[in-house]
Amino acid sequence: MKTSLRPPMRRAPAHRAPRPPYQQIAAHQPSAGVRKGVLRFIPLGGCGEVTRSCYIYEYEDDIVIVDMGFQFPEEDMPGIDYLIPIIEYLIPKKKNIRGVIITHGHYDHIGAIPHLMEPLGNPPIYATALTRGIVTKRQEEFPHAPKLRFEVINSESKLRLGKFGVEFFHVNHNIPDSIGVILKTPVGNVVHTGDWKFDHEPVNEKPADISRLREIGESRVLLLVSDSTDADIPGRQLTETDIQRSMEKIFIEAPGRIIAATFASLLTRIQQLIWLSEEYKRKVLIEGTSMKHNVLVAHELGYLKVKKDTCIQSKDFERYKDKELTIACTGAQGEDRAALMRIANNEHRSIVLKPTDSVVFSSSVIPGNEATVQRVKDILYRRAGKIYHNFSMDIHAGGHAKQEELKEMIGFIKPKYFVPIHGNYFMLKIHTSLAEEMGMPKENIMIAEDGEIVEMNESGIQKSKYKAQTGLVMVDGLGVGDVKEVVLRDRQMLSQDGIFVIIAAVDAQTGIVKGSPDIISRGFIYLKESGELLHQSRHLVRRVVEESTNRMHPINWAHIRDNIRERLGSFLFQKTKRRPMVLPVIIEV
Amino acid sequence: MKTSLRPPMRRAPAHRAPRPPYQQIAAHQPSAGVRKGVLRFIPLGGCGEVTRSCYIYEYEDDIVIVDMGFQFPEEDMPGIDYLIPIIEYLIPKKKNIRGVIITHGHYDHIGAIPHLMEPLGNPPIYATALTRGIVTKRQEEFPHAPKLRFEVINSESKLRLGKFGVEFFHVNHNIPDSIGVILKTPVGNVVHTGDWKFDHEPVNEKPADISRLREIGESRVLLLVSDSTDADIPGRQLTETDIQRSMEKIFIEAPGRIIAATFASLLTRIQQLIWLSEEYKRKVLIEGTSMKHNVLVAHELGYLKVKKDTCIQSKDFERYKDKELTIACTGAQGEDRAALMRIANNEHRSIVLKPTDSVVFSSSVIPGNEATVQRVKDILYRRAGKIYHNFSMDIHAGGHAKQEELKEMIGFIKPKYFVPIHGNYFMLKIHTSLAEEMGMPKENIMIAEDGEIVEMNESGIQKSKYKAQTGLVMVDGLGVGDVKEVVLRDRQMLSQDGIFVIIAAVDAQTGIVKGSPDIISRGFIYLKESGELLHQSRHLVRRVVEESTNRMHPINWAHIRDNIRERLGSFLFQKTKRRPMVLPVIIEV
Repeated sequence: MKTSLRPPMRRAPAHRAPRPPYQQIAAHQPSAGVRKGVLRFIPLGGCGEVTRSCYIYEYEDDIVIVDMGFQFPEEDMPGIDYLIPIIEYLIPKKKNIRGVIITHGHYDHIGAIPHLMEPLGNPPIYATALTRGIVTKRQEEFPHAPKLRFEVINSESKLRLGKFGVEFFHVNHNIPDSIGVILKTPVGNVVHTGDWKFDHEPVNEKPADISRLREIGESRVLLLVSDSTDADIPGRQLTETDIQRSMEKIFIEAPGRIIAATFASLLTRIQQLIWLSEEYKRKVLIEGTSMKHNVLVAHELGYLKVKKDTCIQSKDFERYKDKELTIACTGAQGEDRAALMRIANNEHRSIVLKPTDSVVFSSSVIPGNEATVQRVKDILYRRAGKIYHNFSMDIHAGGHAKQEELKEMIGFIKPKYFVPIHGNYFMLKIHTSLAEEMGMPKENIMIAEDGEIVEMNESGIQKSKYKAQTGLVMVDGLGVGDVKEVVLRDRQMLSQDGIFVIIAAVDAQTGIVKGSPDIISRGFIYLKESGELLHQSRHLVRRVVEESTNRMHPINWAHIRDNIRERLGSFLFQKTKRRPMVLPVIIEV
Repeated sequence: MKTSLRPPMRRAPAHRAPRPPYQQIAAHQPSAGVRKGVLRFIPLGGCGEVTRSCYIYEYEDDIVIVDMGFQFPEEDMPGIDYLIPIIEYLIPKKKNIRGVIITHGHYDHIGAIPHLMEPLGNPPIYATALTRGIVTKRQEEFPHAPKLRFEVINSESKLRLGKFGVEFFHVNHNIPDSIGVILKTPVGNVVHTGDWKFDHEPVNEKPADISRLREIGESRVLLLVSDSTDADIPGRQLTETDIQRSMEKIFIEAPGRIIAATFASLLTRIQQLIWLSEEYKRKVLIEGTSMKHNVLVAHELGYLKVKKDTCIQSKDFERYKDKELTIACTGAQGEDRAALMRIANNEHRSIVLKPTDSVVFSSSVIPGNEATVQRVKDILYRRAGKIYHNFSMDIHAGGHAKQEELKEMIGFIKPKYFVPIHGNYFMLKIHTSLAEEMGMPKENIMIAEDGEIVEMNESGIQKSKYKAQTGLVMVDGLGVGDVKEVVLRDRQMLSQDGIFVIIAAVDAQTGIVKGSPDIISRGFIYLKESGELLHQSRHLVRRVVEESTNRMHPINWAHIRDNIRERLGSFLFQKTKRRPMVLPVIIEV
């Protein structure tokens, strides 16, 4: 093991790092602060985390929203499906919203759309064709949500949204049809990059449009707002052509099937697998619902080039020799129910691993998933022939610019002001140092955390004393926001030591316990082997009730319940060093 | 975000990768298979995971155990403190156990000692002085455990344990006084490396003893058993002298306090911090209980060289200028209650972060802790001046050999047979390819997973058809093994959607529900805002009971409870898309 002497007791996660509160009320009414001739930039999500992107640009009576993403739950949010940003700042101003621009089709940029469009009055959405396809596909899961009003744009489109002139520019990312946004405001131009990297030799999309960026830079940019995801990583991102070259080696070597796991949305990689399969006479089977969805949408819209007979259905699977098959699947993060895990665990209806299979992990590992990925690797190394991953070969490039690219972008755009977005705080902070390295004066660089309001015009940039309300709304099943912190805390407690419910029927007149108290316990101790502990607990409860009621007229039942909770809790802790949630129920009979 | 379209529902972790079962019963009685003139190697833990090391060497009536570690719980084992190996294989043979050799003082090699020594008849333990010190210190937490019988050894010691001649050799690791073991058996010599790396310029310990290893290699080694932790990483480990040089740069630059977080057991790093502090006229404050313990033990035994006035107490803290202070602390993994997190969160009684502080992360990130580490970094980048970590500087070296070193070890030892240990399966597998690269014949290389019995002598190596019982015993508070899988499954369920207890008092004669059923729910929904749902639930339960009892003579209460569970469960799912654990209680009155 790589550590030791870590304190073994990892109980209540009480003292963890603070994070945005759930639905915190802002100290001030921020609308009060809107000033004439001043542009506001307000992140509602994405400035403090690499997810949940939602950015507001506000100029007097006009608001443009860029992206509307969700966040996957953290490890101490059991049962939660995902989290969406709080939009209280926008609600009273919804008549000012001129549109929502979506930069690309990843869930951390689109995932909150089904929940937030209705309360915002369903403003028009501006997105490229692929992005619209993905958003529309997901919207089908929400039959009660309003029909979205889309306007499809491309990198050449020009719009007017209130006082904002809007243009776009092509960026490389790991999903096609990603765009950056130029907002032409009365006080100057804003460049909002979205998620991006420079790829000069991409696959299936245009190379980075450096001349366009230089041209934008010549037009006097007031503010650059740029992606910080990889701001702590030196160097540059690999190009997709290099990735394809490494992948090709695998296609040349593989003696049997190629099973390639990647992100469901990594359409570039899927395209590479399809092209290489066509070249090396393999059929392609797509496995995993979300990947199938994306492939379908991208293919329909012409973003995936596939020859007519390349993709096969799993029912036709057995008609081909192993050497004629590529399986592109989800599960590169070791997710429990994704295709790769089902294949690895022999739970897939038709695919069983063989020693001639070559398994390719074409993805990075999302922080927090490392242990799960190790687990799926264990199974694969046991059952498959050869495993390829990042360590041994360049078979994955992320979608985000690294330090040298980030600096180049600043150099091309030459903004007066700079605000980093799409990052944990430490990434934003490192991104500001890169801007300083590029010669920008410190006072023109600003970190805006979620909810902070940055105000600017030609004469200066500053933070408003007002703050927009920020925080997270938890979505759990059909409930949006009904899981409050107390519910989450209870789930955490229950998961640590379980629950212990004791039910006593008490004669309301005499205070005598009738019969033997019932005990229901789950997640605390193995009941079948704990007869003595249960017996003593019943006895204790009877004693506590009868001692308490003895001299009590009238009987204070709340007080008795508190007594039971406390004394039974101490008793159980003393016997087991565990603290189950103790819930006494008294039935007066 | 680096992903998207991951299926948002991450509910019951039913389909995860299989792992060793809890207390699985072996198919065969393995003792039956002990054969004359054959050496057995049996891992009880550590072959399938980088933790829980426990290895058995058995020759006829003699058994030597090497290491006795525990494992920290995985993320789906809420409330569990740690896991220890099952030792059922050893119990009937305990009279054969000649001794337990401990290779070094890390918890994954010593952590099960307090629980396993008594059932094994408290055999003698052979360990170096520092290892003994650490084991003894921890044993104080277990007042009812038997007093351990230690024999202190060093790398020059020679022992006889039954038919095993035992010698040792010095290895480098990230805790001093680590040893490898040579077992001289009637069928040949075994080299068991323990955790190791080659460091030719270490700090505060001897360099790798290459000439000794070559000498051992000349003596005809039957079997090499070697650490696989970093078998998937190309290259070589950094030397500690390089680390110290990088660290020195920080000491030269730092304008104020240096706060250096590392593993509590990483005594080499702590020694470096002490020496550099002495050189640069700083006092050292050690923060974090486990680090304090280790420093105390190591200092008492002479393994840490500290000048008389270097270390200070926190009460004297304010007598020094910032530039005169180094704080060495725990918490480099972002652990909730470790010193660094308390400092970052302003919860430390005397240390508050300042913009002049330099914070040093001198550790690797243990898989699974990445998200937590990002969180603590966020806070530090906000409050401290400068943050140093692995990305930007060589300020940490792991304790394990990488690929080039692993191959060199095989080259020095020149074993007839090779078995990799201390690794996930995929690491063991990669380690076997390294052995093949070194020219070892495939049939002489064997992966033994936990519980598998490898038998060998000069004429061959093979796996026995028998298996030792393997698996995990969960330790939770005072309970060892009393948390069974059903308890764990309940904890997981409770953490997802909580619990919903409904208590109805029913007239045993008429089957009529008396009064309004009581509801107790935790972790399911915010009760205060769910009046209507509770009302409908009560109504439903009354209806189910009264419909069921109506035509039932005598009343089958178990059947009624099942009815309630099912119908109330469906009702709640339909209303919320959540599945709380539904527990109906019927009180007959």
